Amino acid sequence: MSVTAQQSELIKNSIKSIPDYPKPGILFRDVTSLLEAPVAYATSIEMLANRFRDTGVTKVVGTEARGFLFGAPVALALGVDFVPVRKPGKLPRPTISESYELEYGTDSLEIHTDAINAGDKVLVIDDLLATGGTIEATVKLIRRLGGDVTDAAFIINLFDLGGEQRLNNLGINCYSLVNFPGH
Amino acid sequence: MSVTAQQSELIKNSIKSIPDYPKPGILFRDVTSLLEAPVAYATSIEMLANRFRDTGVTKVVGTEARGFLFGAPVALALGVDFVPVRKPGKLPRPTISESYELEYGTDSLEIHTDAINAGDKVLVIDDLLATGGTIEATVKLIRRLGGDVTDAAFIINLFDLGGEQRLNNLGINCYSLVNFPGH
Repeated sequence: MSVTAQQSELIKNSIKSIPDYPKPGILFRDVTSLLEAPVAYATSIEMLANRFRDTGVTKVVGTEARGFLFGAPVALALGVDFVPVRKPGKLPRPTISESYELEYGTDSLEIHTDAINAGDKVLVIDDLLATGGTIEATVKLIRRLGGDVTDAAFIINLFDLGGEQRLNNLGINCYSLVNFPGH
Repeated sequence: MSVTAQQSELIKNSIKSIPDYPKPGILFRDVTSLLEAPVAYATSIEMLANRFRDTGVTKVVGTEARGFLFGAPVALALGVDFVPVRKPGKLPRPTISESYELEYGTDSLEIHTDAINAGDKVLVIDDLLATGGTIEATVKLIRRLGGDVTDAAFIINLFDLGGEQRLNNLGINCYSLVNFPGH
């Protein structure tokens, strides 16, 4: 097995699966258990940082709250800004907002208007790719501020939920460390 | 100026102050601006990690959501588990809960029951110490699970809001990188 395959296996084995959460029939992949496996957690950050080192990334964007757990350490490893995307009303400086669809209803995300400049090359990081709704909203926020975003990276891709195709359709390449079925 | 004083100054200068947020008369210290200053952000993580290296810490606990931005990188730097404390209903495994007082009403925080073991030496990290209510609830959660917690560390201490005294009364030492008045 290659080093990369071994690293992915280490990470995969550190992610607990919780039956019937948040509702019956769903097998939830619990990324918090990766945080409690220090070697696997450090490996996940190293893999993401190595993939995007020397690609000209100037900023990493991560979404509240679990995206902070991976995006911020990757930004630190790359030596670039970390820009948080948050739920409404949480950011203190002027913001712009994008809404996205939930299973029932809609929600929205905000970013500081001054956090992205025209010409910034932005990498989006989140813990998990499912249907891609929050990442699509995040990409739209970055592009409205003039940022150049072509890549999104995840610890987990629930590969059969259509998120990767949805993001590909927006011109976003997806990179993920481990894959699980979402059904 | 000592190296430590210079580092604190670098961090302090990277924290923007936002007038009248979240309401008129409040001068809000915006820690997200520190995330957009990569050298200062990395310095803040290094200072916290250096302070607690070789002190026997086995786990770092951070509270949702801004505590994740500092607690998780410090846990990675120390090579120990990061344990998230979250708002109700966000953690997938069995949890215990503690409520705390807000200006109007109460809120509560949860931790995974299996995340702390008897004998763990736990360090609590958050972005900002104000009145100390969320950190008091976090300390109680850790102690209910048998964890040994004697230290909490912060980027910012709003030194005149009583948080440090409140935590001292619980047997918690406070360490912070920069100080601002809260009034």
